[in-house]
Amino acid sequence: MLTGKNVIACEPVDSADGRFSASGVLAQFEEASVDHVDQALDASAQAFDEYRRVPADARARFLDHIAEAIEHSDDLVEAAHVETALPLDRLTGERARTAAQLRMFANLLREGSWADARIDRAIPDRKPLPKPDIRRMLIPIGPVVVFGASNFPLAFSVAGGDTASAFAAGCPVVVKAHPAHPATSELAARAIIEAVEAAHIPRGSFSLLQSSRNEIAAALVRHRSTKAVGFTGSQRAGRALFDVAASRPDPIPMYAEMGSVNPVFLLPGAVAERGDAIAEALKNSVTLGVGQFCTNPGVTIGIDDDRFDQFVQRMEGLFREAGVGTMLYPAIFQSYEAGVQRLSALTRTCVRPSSVEEEFRARPSMFQTDARTFMRHRELGEEVFGPSTVVVRCGSREEMEAVAQHLEGQLTATIHGTPQDLAEYASLLSTLENKAGRLVFNGFPTGVEVCASMQHGGP
Amino acid sequence: MLTGKNVIACEPVDSADGRFSASGVLAQFEEASVDHVDQALDASAQAFDEYRRVPADARARFLDHIAEAIEHSDDLVEAAHVETALPLDRLTGERARTAAQLRMFANLLREGSWADARIDRAIPDRKPLPKPDIRRMLIPIGPVVVFGASNFPLAFSVAGGDTASAFAAGCPVVVKAHPAHPATSELAARAIIEAVEAAHIPRGSFSLLQSSRNEIAAALVRHRSTKAVGFTGSQRAGRALFDVAASRPDPIPMYAEMGSVNPVFLLPGAVAERGDAIAEALKNSVTLGVGQFCTNPGVTIGIDDDRFDQFVQRMEGLFREAGVGTMLYPAIFQSYEAGVQRLSALTRTCVRPSSVEEEFRARPSMFQTDARTFMRHRELGEEVFGPSTVVVRCGSREEMEAVAQHLEGQLTATIHGTPQDLAEYASLLSTLENKAGRLVFNGFPTGVEVCASMQHGGP
Repeated sequence: MLTGKNVIACEPVDSADGRFSASGVLAQFEEASVDHVDQALDASAQAFDEYRRVPADARARFLDHIAEAIEHSDDLVEAAHVETALPLDRLTGERARTAAQLRMFANLLREGSWADARIDRAIPDRKPLPKPDIRRMLIPIGPVVVFGASNFPLAFSVAGGDTASAFAAGCPVVVKAHPAHPATSELAARAIIEAVEAAHIPRGSFSLLQSSRNEIAAALVRHRSTKAVGFTGSQRAGRALFDVAASRPDPIPMYAEMGSVNPVFLLPGAVAERGDAIAEALKNSVTLGVGQFCTNPGVTIGIDDDRFDQFVQRMEGLFREAGVGTMLYPAIFQSYEAGVQRLSALTRTCVRPSSVEEEFRARPSMFQTDARTFMRHRELGEEVFGPSTVVVRCGSREEMEAVAQHLEGQLTATIHGTPQDLAEYASLLSTLENKAGRLVFNGFPTGVEVCASMQHGGP
Repeated sequence: MLTGKNVIACEPVDSADGRFSASGVLAQFEEASVDHVDQALDASAQAFDEYRRVPADARARFLDHIAEAIEHSDDLVEAAHVETALPLDRLTGERARTAAQLRMFANLLREGSWADARIDRAIPDRKPLPKPDIRRMLIPIGPVVVFGASNFPLAFSVAGGDTASAFAAGCPVVVKAHPAHPATSELAARAIIEAVEAAHIPRGSFSLLQSSRNEIAAALVRHRSTKAVGFTGSQRAGRALFDVAASRPDPIPMYAEMGSVNPVFLLPGAVAERGDAIAEALKNSVTLGVGQFCTNPGVTIGIDDDRFDQFVQRMEGLFREAGVGTMLYPAIFQSYEAGVQRLSALTRTCVRPSSVEEEFRARPSMFQTDARTFMRHRELGEEVFGPSTVVVRCGSREEMEAVAQHLEGQLTATIHGTPQDLAEYASLLSTLENKAGRLVFNGFPTGVEVCASMQHGGP
């Protein structure tokens, strides 16, 4: 049932530039060529004028159609399971989330306030000069290139949040699928094409390119018809594409959700009050989905006292007993293991389950260091994608604040504290407000709600 | 009364890196050093945490205080008159506009909706997982560097719109004054300092650096504590600073208002109906303020028929008789004259008054070319700052649309048309919607209202 082909303006196309293989359903997928990039963006640019004029109600119906097609595709969940090793129940949940995201944007379209319309009426008899009628609103920017994420094959990929928001705004979309799940991507594209047909949307509004090559990614961002980029992935890849976007003759916006260590600050009152419960929940958050979340808590910071010592011992016990899990694909596992080696060398401590049942199963890891060592080694504050956390012991409140100041921009920062802790550490909170897009109080960063108040991006 | 000194955290400072001269009030001003950049931004970063916590009402009173101090400063208008050669009545109007801008932001602060607050309340008994309470709002980003404009010494300079919006949001401001009006800048800074004192604002919230050097501008944008940039000026200077902002380890937003040729499209029905009136008003718009507006209409595009021929003849007559005017400063005049030479060489037509009464007085200029020549020479679509316009004759509607497609991003695009013209040229309008930040119908782009619906920026 799969073609393994690139899709331009809702049609499968030939003349690929070689093939690449992915684990699972179909052995080989066609690599998009630079010509395909041109064709896909030319089709988007041509479709833009017609698509942006499709009334908001009809665009909302289009999004609802995609949601329905996604919900009815069992193939999609099965393909994703084979390609990513993610469990079926997690993927069934992710499919529901994907549909919910599409419907959220459909409802936003029907409601209409997103356009931020402002109207100043004319004052023809104003002195010394008449005032004209002036109106301002947001309008669609043009073709958007969306890069699918490896870790959410449905919700942050072909028919994910970035695609939903671009379609909602009236922008055609060219998706660059993540090469780790090409079959899932082809099936999700099929759901979109079904909806394009059902809702009578111009066919040039959607294309899907399959590629494992950096130069195709760069060509998509550099193309004269590309007007914005949606990206989910590593800081390295994201920054490389940002630099392409910013150095164009006409720089374009890039909405990037990149690597983050999502620091968790444990204040002394909270540790004394419920250290064991925090340890249990934190270990669960670190190991959830084999640690493959952008909001995974990769750094845990506490004040070095007896209670914190007990907390750390409890964490060690939990990490020694933690379950192992299969990661998304071999390269991610290898990269995790390399990260564990790097952190072990810098901290000389690594607590993890000792036995490995089989190859490519990742063992959760916990490291310990002190604040000064943490601040001296940049790598200790860099994301290791997988189920690990670095525990940082601080000698004082001042040192904890210095660690917070030292951190780069983050998706989230979490604080566990009693009301008294929060009053005492007010200036820590103030620092974190400017370091992270989202602050979590007495909770855990994994789990991103689908709702209008959710901030899922940097500071 | 003037010190000629840089101001850091509301205090005049010594140890300048040389001096520069400007026409007028005081012969010499001290050049800011790289150390001054560090000191000003360190003071801003330190003041940020306190200033952002100043309640909205108190920040609004601070802005009102600045407005009042600006309104009461007659020195300000006189200094600007001497430094820029702009007429006193224009500057008195600009002072009123500056105060109105400050008060608009004060009222916005009191009203509060700018924070875009969104609240999703907790659903503790939701299945399978409880929903936490989630809240989202805009918060101040941190110290903002503002670059003053040459052509609006009050409204887009030290206490202008960018400064007003940054202060309103809760961000400290470091202004880099335009070197063409340092005395005006020092006096405007004095108004801000007066308000800082009256409203008990942290003194680190404001600094003013005087500099004529590109490397100081770049150092301000590159400084680790700078979190956003406001800029008004040429495309060349703006792009150079944008590149600095985008290539930082942590790229920062730059809100830039740069060069634009503000194309005016004259559709055949409108030209037939009121060609003479359009010619008169267009010539007035081109020559207003000696053409020194960012919304100056530098390109005029029409369909080459008999009525347009009559329109062009009428324009030629008006340009031959047009008055001359003194430009802001000698370098701007020289740059205008160089631009006129460049356009003359490319079009072999230049209509302007023949006599020059005295040196440095600019003569309005009108050029003519055809669409193909216009599209072949990039320079014909580039801003020549001053009272000039290039008339482009198109052979057909299709050619006029090709010219529109060919244009770079613009602050404004203007269309003169009858209802029938507008229906017939619907796809031209659609192209222009994506080329310009503001569309003007049957009016002229010069004159930017101070109101919430005004869009003064690119597409």
